[in-house]
Amino acid sequence: MEKVVLAEKFAAFSDLWSPKLVGEVNDFHVKVAKLKGEFVWHHHEHEDELFLVVKGHLRIRLKERDIALDEGEFFIVPRGVEHMPIADEECHVLLLEPKSTLNTGNVRSGRTVSEVQSL
Amino acid sequence: MEKVVLAEKFAAFSDLWSPKLVGEVNDFHVKVAKLKGEFVWHHHEHEDELFLVVKGHLRIRLKERDIALDEGEFFIVPRGVEHMPIADEECHVLLLEPKSTLNTGNVRSGRTVSEVQSL
Repeated sequence: MEKVVLAEKFAAFSDLWSPKLVGEVNDFHVKVAKLKGEFVWHHHEHEDELFLVVKGHLRIRLKERDIALDEGEFFIVPRGVEHMPIADEECHVLLLEPKSTLNTGNVRSGRTVSEVQSL
Repeated sequence: MEKVVLAEKFAAFSDLWSPKLVGEVNDFHVKVAKLKGEFVWHHHEHEDELFLVVKGHLRIRLKERDIALDEGEFFIVPRGVEHMPIADEECHVLLLEPKSTLNTGNVRSGRTVSEVQSL
């Protein structure tokens, strides 16, 4: 039962597109991730997913438009909605999603992280 | 389905100890609140509760110690754990908790907010 210093967590890893577990709130996971480049198109059948930008800029590409997020801004991707995160430069995000959430949703790819590492 | 700019949300209200709803992620609520002074001792029987400090400093008093949080730091109060948030100066926090969570937990007081306002 300790506090979490986000800056310390981000300093503790460098791999991209690999969310790290930093907290559990009932059946939810709090994760941090470093993103750069384009991810894969996917959706989550049952889970909404919150992206909060802690550092940098993130675009969440939806089928009909892009959501552009700066530091201190978040977007909740509703379940079932196709999305692809894109970061032109390295971006640090806090993710909030049900424990059941797989990072690539309905898609299995080289980007899929089946076992999330705890920090 | 719009992004949330935290600074805009915090600029939109001034009342203290009155969490405002800014997002829903499955069965979870994302809220923002401005805190100053001492709250009431309480616990949540079934809900864990995450406090992320967006601006200022927050202490979460537990029975055996205080958790001191600065900007960019969060603490998850586990269900069942007595706690009292304290802010010497006005502090802005993001709260993450199950939708069933009442701000004063097991206690009913003048501080209880039964109907959470959406922003």
